[in-house]
Amino acid sequence: MQALVFDGALELREIESPAVPADEALIRPRLVGICGTDIQLMHGYSGFTQRGQGIFGHEFVGTVVACADEQWIGQRVVGEINAACRCCPTCLRGDHPHCPHRTTLGINQRPGALAEGFTLPIANLHAVPDTIPDEAAVFTEPLAAALELVDQIHVRPTDRVVVVGDGKLGLLVAQVLRLTGCTLQLVGRHPERWPLLARQRIPATTQASDLAERAWDIAVDCTGSPAGFATAQALVRPRGRLVLKSTFHGLVPLDFAPLVVDEIQVIGSRCGPFDAALRLLERGLVETEPLISASFPLTEAEAAFAAVPGALKILVRV
Amino acid sequence: MQALVFDGALELREIESPAVPADEALIRPRLVGICGTDIQLMHGYSGFTQRGQGIFGHEFVGTVVACADEQWIGQRVVGEINAACRCCPTCLRGDHPHCPHRTTLGINQRPGALAEGFTLPIANLHAVPDTIPDEAAVFTEPLAAALELVDQIHVRPTDRVVVVGDGKLGLLVAQVLRLTGCTLQLVGRHPERWPLLARQRIPATTQASDLAERAWDIAVDCTGSPAGFATAQALVRPRGRLVLKSTFHGLVPLDFAPLVVDEIQVIGSRCGPFDAALRLLERGLVETEPLISASFPLTEAEAAFAAVPGALKILVRV
Repeated sequence: MQALVFDGALELREIESPAVPADEALIRPRLVGICGTDIQLMHGYSGFTQRGQGIFGHEFVGTVVACADEQWIGQRVVGEINAACRCCPTCLRGDHPHCPHRTTLGINQRPGALAEGFTLPIANLHAVPDTIPDEAAVFTEPLAAALELVDQIHVRPTDRVVVVGDGKLGLLVAQVLRLTGCTLQLVGRHPERWPLLARQRIPATTQASDLAERAWDIAVDCTGSPAGFATAQALVRPRGRLVLKSTFHGLVPLDFAPLVVDEIQVIGSRCGPFDAALRLLERGLVETEPLISASFPLTEAEAAFAAVPGALKILVRV
Repeated sequence: MQALVFDGALELREIESPAVPADEALIRPRLVGICGTDIQLMHGYSGFTQRGQGIFGHEFVGTVVACADEQWIGQRVVGEINAACRCCPTCLRGDHPHCPHRTTLGINQRPGALAEGFTLPIANLHAVPDTIPDEAAVFTEPLAAALELVDQIHVRPTDRVVVVGDGKLGLLVAQVLRLTGCTLQLVGRHPERWPLLARQRIPATTQASDLAERAWDIAVDCTGSPAGFATAQALVRPRGRLVLKSTFHGLVPLDFAPLVVDEIQVIGSRCGPFDAALRLLERGLVETEPLISASFPLTEAEAAFAAVPGALKILVRV
């Protein structure tokens, strides 16, 4: 089978079809989304390259083609990306996405979805309702990550919330927050992406300086940049909550004193609940179609990666 | 009256007795505690020196000597240090310690308690029950700061909590946490301070490396140093809470990625509830006497400041 292998550079190669452990399923992807994390992994984040070669891809919708539990075969699925041991203390308290023994699809010690086949534990799979097209289902993973925010903290309908960043994740986070009834404001740099926001009555601005400083109950940094964190920090009120929705690589000089004096809560936020994401997609409560910039066949996956900078979601068809 | 004035250096000077606004009280301190924050202020934190001269001292127990509301006169009191406007949106939602118009006793635009008299709003005063001696009452402010942690976050009796730092605040925080029933561990550098902990059955170690990493539900940094933050970060579990109980001056290079990947909540924590602190003191639930290293008269206040490094609480008798 063909796979897009990263070994310092991306290359389409013929590889062996993976062996399928008894508790896993072999999946042929239908669509794979390229994530900002993939680009960061290429540039050294999380030591991906130090571990030699690998296959990216952790956002997918696919079809199960082999599985010991035959009821899954032929099923259209999405899948949680962290493969946990399910028996350690972390797993047993319900924190399996944080299992210290986990592998992570396309990120850490588990080949990703940018291939004609890959495996994932059955426990990670979620059947996709027929009413959700592939082009929406492929957003389940990032939408779940957006939902993680409201799974971690209580966002009240009376809260004032500002989202910094109008990338893919920022636009999903804003759409999720909109559903809480909160006062909502987005700060971004790409007005061409805002018709989606206008339809959903979410105000957006390029000028954070026009917004009231130290006045927002919750500020969410979806930029993945130190500048975005600084903007969010300037906007959040004393005793407010500052959510970090994206990772960035490297050290940032931080002045801790204002966090203590203003009693800010900084909340790291990562992967989230797939079932709830599928429910939002099924109910049509979130728009994903405007988030797609382009799609490429797997044979043109290098071109797909080249198209990522400045784009919204780039999809790969397998 | 005499006051210890800081103007680049400390000097005992004769100054005018302050005018007493209608909603304030003139207080003659009985005992004043020197706080680590005072030392940081001397070295530039919060721009204290840029605002020219000033009088330190925000931990005190004193006697009201003048007040428009005569029932306060002669009353022994402690006082909250933030003088808020009590009418802005921040104050009206109950966050008056964060009032943007606030002055702060001995810290920001309000002369402190290291003088024979100073004023504070009546709304900030708390009468001290007769059963609490001055030497305990003077700890109301730092004990309230320790209690702020359990006012901000829910510490469960089933939580595993580690306190990093065995300074004054660390020893108060540990004593407060002990009352929750949680599993508790202190990491410190001063075994000579630990008889207090041994009496209270709080285990302590100098070797953070002996403790399980990534295993503590809550880690509290009371060191006021970047190294202490790093220790706390290494000990807290994924999805755990990391509380910053002390400020330090300057920028610290921070890698944000682990905070996001491990979904850590970083919680800044500052001033706390005085009433609850007085209740703990009245009930004898917290030991303060072992925290006193020495006391000096106001006329020897410079010597008192010189005694601070390496000591626990240094008190000034006025």
